[in-house]
Amino acid sequence: MNTDLQDYSHKRYNILTGEWVLVSPHRAKRPWQGQNEAVNNEARPSYDENCYLCPGNTRINGEVNPNYEDVFVFTNDFGALQKDSKTFSVEDGLLIAKSETGICKVICFSPDHSKSLADMTPEEIQKVVFTWQKEYTELGANKAINYVQIFENKGAVMGCSNPHPHGQIWSQSTLPNEVEKKNTQQLNYFNKTKSSLLGNYLAQELEKQERIIFENETFVVLIPFWAVWPFEAMIVPKKQKRSILELNDDEALQYAEAISVLTKAYDKLFNTSFPYSSGIHQAPTDGNENNHWHFHMSFYPPLLRSATVKKFMVGYEMFGSPQRDITAETAVKMIKAQL
Amino acid sequence: MNTDLQDYSHKRYNILTGEWVLVSPHRAKRPWQGQNEAVNNEARPSYDENCYLCPGNTRINGEVNPNYEDVFVFTNDFGALQKDSKTFSVEDGLLIAKSETGICKVICFSPDHSKSLADMTPEEIQKVVFTWQKEYTELGANKAINYVQIFENKGAVMGCSNPHPHGQIWSQSTLPNEVEKKNTQQLNYFNKTKSSLLGNYLAQELEKQERIIFENETFVVLIPFWAVWPFEAMIVPKKQKRSILELNDDEALQYAEAISVLTKAYDKLFNTSFPYSSGIHQAPTDGNENNHWHFHMSFYPPLLRSATVKKFMVGYEMFGSPQRDITAETAVKMIKAQL
Ligand SMILES: O=P(O)(O)O[C@H]1O[C@H](CO)[C@@H](O)[C@H](O)[C@H]1O
Ligand SMILES: O=P(O)(O)O[C@H]1O[C@H](CO)[C@@H](O)[C@H](O)[C@H]1O
Repeated sequence: MNTDLQDYSHKRYNILTGEWVLVSPHRAKRPWQGQNEAVNNEARPSYDENCYLCPGNTRINGEVNPNYEDVFVFTNDFGALQKDSKTFSVEDGLLIAKSETGICKVICFSPDHSKSLADMTPEEIQKVVFTWQKEYTELGANKAINYVQIFENKGAVMGCSNPHPHGQIWSQSTLPNEVEKKNTQQLNYFNKTKSSLLGNYLAQELEKQERIIFENETFVVLIPFWAVWPFEAMIVPKKQKRSILELNDDEALQYAEAISVLTKAYDKLFNTSFPYSSGIHQAPTDGNENNHWHFHMSFYPPLLRSATVKKFMVGYEMFGSPQRDITAETAVKMIKAQL
Repeated sequence: MNTDLQDYSHKRYNILTGEWVLVSPHRAKRPWQGQNEAVNNEARPSYDENCYLCPGNTRINGEVNPNYEDVFVFTNDFGALQKDSKTFSVEDGLLIAKSETGICKVICFSPDHSKSLADMTPEEIQKVVFTWQKEYTELGANKAINYVQIFENKGAVMGCSNPHPHGQIWSQSTLPNEVEKKNTQQLNYFNKTKSSLLGNYLAQELEKQERIIFENETFVVLIPFWAVWPFEAMIVPKKQKRSILELNDDEALQYAEAISVLTKAYDKLFNTSFPYSSGIHQAPTDGNENNHWHFHMSFYPPLLRSATVKKFMVGYEMFGSPQRDITAETAVKMIKAQL
């Protein structure tokens, strides 16, 4: 291992976005006098009559949830994207805007209000994966939808307004910024080498074994070299797959196992239901081949030192670059100790 | 005014970064069931014996602060950048890293622990501006420093670990991501038109008067068309100035007035000491002419609806694009009502 990377301030390059992260390993010991997050580790009931996501309950728009038994999907009553947004575009000198249509959905991972992905079995999570596949296919088949963003906000500190286990899908006509960057970087690399950027990166990581958390036959869970969040991690299929659609049932189960192993380790790390935002980046549904895409799921957890002390991505990070204190290599060791 | 922009989901283009923000005006009315921020509106004493920034107190490294009377600057004891970081670079296949050196400073805006910029007079803030000028000059003169990032994190919710009025300066050898983007966009425009991107944008905004909060002889305070944060605002000199160094004493006072007017209005908006991160983007100190740069100061406040409900930039925002509910035009009206 290059020990300079553990001792001196440096920048690491994110091959997927083309951007840099500032790493300050020497800074991990600075004292914390700032805000502590509230933690709620109270056990929740399996059913909460006030939860608008629990089976049989009524949502704000008056609709009643079915008595679902595993996964339940519905269209978001307050979606950020409108299905039938009027089509318009503004090009008034330096004022530039375009209408954007889309469909936003909510996906309940389990009828059990008390659970999170970390408490579910791989078989239960596999059903979530099947639902993601179904939604990706159906939404993607819509001519107006060229990208399907699957994500989860977990925990109050991540702006999650309801603890019932659920994620979201925002699908839209154009590629959002982050996807656009990854599309470009992967395409440039693929055009040059005729191979997958992430596939070749993975080969290096599997050889080094310095940042690998877990692997099974189909998937690797690792902390990428360029990780921004203290315990950021990525789940990547070993063989290039453009999207989750290319997973057969057994591979979907292995994907579920990878999610299960990672989220369980997270929960153990600070002995708390670990907050994060997670998201799947995969091929656009624009009808192109997209042979440069290698899908992956990333987890961005905000916690830094304990259940109550988080990393703030503020001033310097907003105006300059993301910055981290503990290195990816240290974070891997801490997470692996929980397996 | 284009009313489509107030009614339908759309994207707006940020001319300075080349990126888009998703705007969902129809969504402003969704109910909030998520986390409420703690607010502390208790008056602070003018001097706190436990504050490591108050005059005469001892810092963690044992140094004693002088009995300063206006502004006081010192080098951060736990800087994210090291002045004498060993020089190295890693280019191991797809693992790419580079050492980064720099100097991090803390700047106390006032000896009075109880104040914030919003409570200070323009004359007092002018002294802060003079200090920024001095630091920009001195740090920038260092051959190893090619960019000087001046910023402030205000409020516990913005990761500010000490309420004593203060900001920071992180200076370093390379351009951070956000500055790199703005450098490119401004340079491309300047090469094409031989004029300032922001200057031409400002001319349009001054004519429309739809997003202007305040102006004096030298400065405009406005909500940019592409603002991300609900009450994001920008202070821009009317005539192109590459950096704060090009402000004479009177212009520095007008800059201070602009800061004063904006921060006072912020505090009134939700009747709370308004949290934000602010930062100045200006010409690199790389020895080049940088005639394409037009300096500006941005404020990114996290609050959305009240002193306790903030906007979370999470899941979709992290994996897709930033997203906002109330439009820039609505936000301007709300802020102007506080003047
Ligand atoms: O330097 P401070 O105030 O201790 O720390 C704060 O500002 C820094 C610069 O924006 C961030 O990196 C930290 O996450 C934040 O807590
Ligand atoms: O959709 P929710 O859960 O109400 O809202 C949460 O997730 C959204 C998508 O990441 C964000 O835009 C909101 O700021 C956040 O509070």
